[in-house]
Amino acid sequence: MPPSKSHIALGLDFGTESARAILVNTSGGELASAVSKYKHGQIISHLPDSDKPLPPDFALQHPSDWLNSAARATRAVLKTAKINPTQIIGIGVDFTSCTMLPSLADGTPLCLTKKFATNPYAWPKLWKHHAAKKETDLINEIAHARKEKWLRDYGGIIGLEWFFPKTLETLNHAPSVYSAADLFIEAGDWFVWKLIGAPSNYIPRSTCQAGYKAMWNAKTGYPSKAFFKALNPKFENVIEQKVPGKLYAPGTQVGTLAPSIAKRLNLPSDIPVSAATIDAHAGVPGAGACDPNTLVMVMGTSSCHMLNAKSAKHVPGVAGVVKEGILPNLYGYETGQAAVGDAFDWIRKLTGQSNFNELTKDAEQIPPRSDGVLCIDWFNGCRTPLMDGSLTGAFTGLTLRHTPAHLYHALLEASACGVRWIVDELQSAGVPVKKYIATGGLPHHNPLLVQVYADVLGQPITVHPCQHGPALGAAILGALAAGKKQGGHDSAQTAIKQMAAPSKRTAMKATTVRPRRPNIPTYNTLYQNYRKFANLIKDH
Amino acid sequence: MPPSKSHIALGLDFGTESARAILVNTSGGELASAVSKYKHGQIISHLPDSDKPLPPDFALQHPSDWLNSAARATRAVLKTAKINPTQIIGIGVDFTSCTMLPSLADGTPLCLTKKFATNPYAWPKLWKHHAAKKETDLINEIAHARKEKWLRDYGGIIGLEWFFPKTLETLNHAPSVYSAADLFIEAGDWFVWKLIGAPSNYIPRSTCQAGYKAMWNAKTGYPSKAFFKALNPKFENVIEQKVPGKLYAPGTQVGTLAPSIAKRLNLPSDIPVSAATIDAHAGVPGAGACDPNTLVMVMGTSSCHMLNAKSAKHVPGVAGVVKEGILPNLYGYETGQAAVGDAFDWIRKLTGQSNFNELTKDAEQIPPRSDGVLCIDWFNGCRTPLMDGSLTGAFTGLTLRHTPAHLYHALLEASACGVRWIVDELQSAGVPVKKYIATGGLPHHNPLLVQVYADVLGQPITVHPCQHGPALGAAILGALAAGKKQGGHDSAQTAIKQMAAPSKRTAMKATTVRPRRPNIPTYNTLYQNYRKFANLIKDH
Repeated sequence: MPPSKSHIALGLDFGTESARAILVNTSGGELASAVSKYKHGQIISHLPDSDKPLPPDFALQHPSDWLNSAARATRAVLKTAKINPTQIIGIGVDFTSCTMLPSLADGTPLCLTKKFATNPYAWPKLWKHHAAKKETDLINEIAHARKEKWLRDYGGIIGLEWFFPKTLETLNHAPSVYSAADLFIEAGDWFVWKLIGAPSNYIPRSTCQAGYKAMWNAKTGYPSKAFFKALNPKFENVIEQKVPGKLYAPGTQVGTLAPSIAKRLNLPSDIPVSAATIDAHAGVPGAGACDPNTLVMVMGTSSCHMLNAKSAKHVPGVAGVVKEGILPNLYGYETGQAAVGDAFDWIRKLTGQSNFNELTKDAEQIPPRSDGVLCIDWFNGCRTPLMDGSLTGAFTGLTLRHTPAHLYHALLEASACGVRWIVDELQSAGVPVKKYIATGGLPHHNPLLVQVYADVLGQPITVHPCQHGPALGAAILGALAAGKKQGGHDSAQTAIKQMAAPSKRTAMKATTVRPRRPNIPTYNTLYQNYRKFANLIKDH
Repeated sequence: MPPSKSHIALGLDFGTESARAILVNTSGGELASAVSKYKHGQIISHLPDSDKPLPPDFALQHPSDWLNSAARATRAVLKTAKINPTQIIGIGVDFTSCTMLPSLADGTPLCLTKKFATNPYAWPKLWKHHAAKKETDLINEIAHARKEKWLRDYGGIIGLEWFFPKTLETLNHAPSVYSAADLFIEAGDWFVWKLIGAPSNYIPRSTCQAGYKAMWNAKTGYPSKAFFKALNPKFENVIEQKVPGKLYAPGTQVGTLAPSIAKRLNLPSDIPVSAATIDAHAGVPGAGACDPNTLVMVMGTSSCHMLNAKSAKHVPGVAGVVKEGILPNLYGYETGQAAVGDAFDWIRKLTGQSNFNELTKDAEQIPPRSDGVLCIDWFNGCRTPLMDGSLTGAFTGLTLRHTPAHLYHALLEASACGVRWIVDELQSAGVPVKKYIATGGLPHHNPLLVQVYADVLGQPITVHPCQHGPALGAAILGALAAGKKQGGHDSAQTAIKQMAAPSKRTAMKATTVRPRRPNIPTYNTLYQNYRKFANLIKDH
């Protein structure tokens, strides 16, 4: 049964603020998409129903939000598309990462038990939770002292936002939570586990999440017991005790939709479900990128810049290099910027604007280099290349004549310089970057941003027309989980070309933004200044 | 005729945004004050009735605003005080400086002539006009090369805001304006000249403005012809050709009120008028300070920190040391910060607030060191100690959790660190600072600011109760111009004690703000960080 107009894949995309459902024909063509905001949003000041302030740098989510928003979005998208739910042949899930939670063996999040409801450590930690600084430092220190081989897959640095810093933080600060948890699990894996209603002895985890966020690799598995013991004797058996499950590549069918949850989603049961993937990584197939050496910039709250290459190079400060971490037969490179849309929104709020209209209108009039205002965009730390969540943002060159739009324009330029720095690191390690594709929510809403990026990079950028690349990528994984026999696809390359490449069939038209030539030398200078100032700030 | 309740001095105080008139009994006691905003305010984007943008760093004023606002304020204050105008025995004038203008020999500002109305260089340059950067650099370079002796009276650096940089800028950029001008004159001197209606062969200039802003001193006069020639051959005879007039100390009677202007002010003619003084310098007598080694912090749009001492020491970066520049028999030290109230207002506007209520309320809850946000307060350059108008402001330590109030609180702290740096420079040059008095508009409206200053300095600060110290100081000069015989005073010390010292007679009660002990060590650390970061920024 080859892919046809009647076969549809469902992509479920879990972001920082909302979940999105998308329906895509397996032969190409988006039918509809719907988004549902999380009721509790990001939990950063206090737990729901509590006045007690959270410790600094906490960022949590409510697990019920995921299921509720997914159900609302799926029901909405089915209604809009007016299809027969039996046409859905596969489901894929992408999720922010490392967003993770402690859970009981039956899948109950620990924070939903009466005993632990008021303990912040029992709640899902959002990717941007930054409270495991000490644990991250210890992990890096011990890993370097022990010369752990897996270190070089991660640019020599383990990130503050990853799985084991967050897990070890709970052991250190809330041993009762650690002890009561039957498992710690990526939210994406947890959600897939829920979808298929599998028992506690079958927990499918994604090689993508494990590879990029939990120091796992296909050859040697997780780090050794001796390493974990060196972190904390009670952490020695963390894998056996707290990280049960089997690893599956994204696109692999790990089960089918369980009846109870099928009802909530208004879908028939038994639809094949793929292993989860990270939202940014789903953005690569979602952007129609199946060729190596194309930088896919997945731009949202934060940005992940992903690239496939034919070989593994060790790039200092790159977040991760995982074999088949993104696509089959290629090495997937993940790099990123910790605050992009989040930082723009911070400036918007800081300057008392209710939306971006005026900021954008004014910023469009501001010349390159923002009339002397220089920004360092580390408002949520620096991911690539410095991998240091404790770094902070800065502005310099400020004078009384500068307006909110100057700060905003300088921030756009800083964000662009951040990408250029990443590209520099890749290229000087022997990983060429030949093409640039922008995707995610931001590039569509913010043409000025893409223009500034193109100017600063001095390279054309293709804006992929799908306004929600990760969701489309998740749908592609759903089609792969179904396989050709059930109306999906067997090959990732075919699936991407059919479902996500701009074409008449997919009704997607890419736009290309070219650098404005006169700005290129100006921005070469700005970039040098940015690097110099970043260096000063870093050491202050 | 000794000072009595029936003898009243009028002080006219010209600020950046408005003029103020004050009536003070020569035996003590403020009767009334009134303020009148300048119709054109600061002219920084384009000339009145023009759409053409001004060059960068321009800050101009409209000369008609000075007379109109003075007339409105004087009429208003007479009405409020319900006095007989014949009771007014003397008039004193203080003015921002160096605010200066090109004028015809009859006193007509060049910008009010048809020919030059559209030429920005024909307009009065406000003190904060910063477009004479190249001229300032040249003046400093040549003065150092020639080892000019007067350099050490100015901390070794001539400021961007001073008289000759602004004059030379006009010669360089608008030779037709330079050539058409019969004279260049400080706005305060120009106003006094207008008040007394004197002819072109009698232009009384103030030793205060000349001493602090035009490199003049009582012993050697202005810099030499050879020096001016080295700047530009056409500048050789600038003093003879463009700076006519005789120098008088503030408090000296230079003439009496001319009939035409008396009518506009609703005053009798022939009232004695004092030589002008700089607004900040008027703040010293206005704050009741006649003792040496008391730092009078005159805080407004910018701040001037003034101190009298018994000897002249050469302090690097101090704006000026002038013998009897502030009070008789003492050496007057002038130091300053280029953006204080201006910078607070900039943050207010930047953060979209219509007033300071919310910012202040929120900032009061923010702990010392502003939750990691560090500010450098050079939003209009750095006056003391670096004397570099081209330096710019900065923020670092910024994260997504920071609010407008964090930026505002960090700015208050930066401003306080700026004062502490000035005090450090004075003390290490052998000029002790024993007492602190705050005056000007800001300390009264902003108790949080004074508290942060006290905390950062680790010293108590007396807030002088007169809400407009410079205006009171100007009135004291008016009483001195009149002299004891006409119901005024002959001695500055007596005049200050009678008219400006807190007492029952003056109906002024001082408040003292003490440092909060637990904050002192925290702020010692902040100050070190501020100095370190200022050093980085300076060299970037």
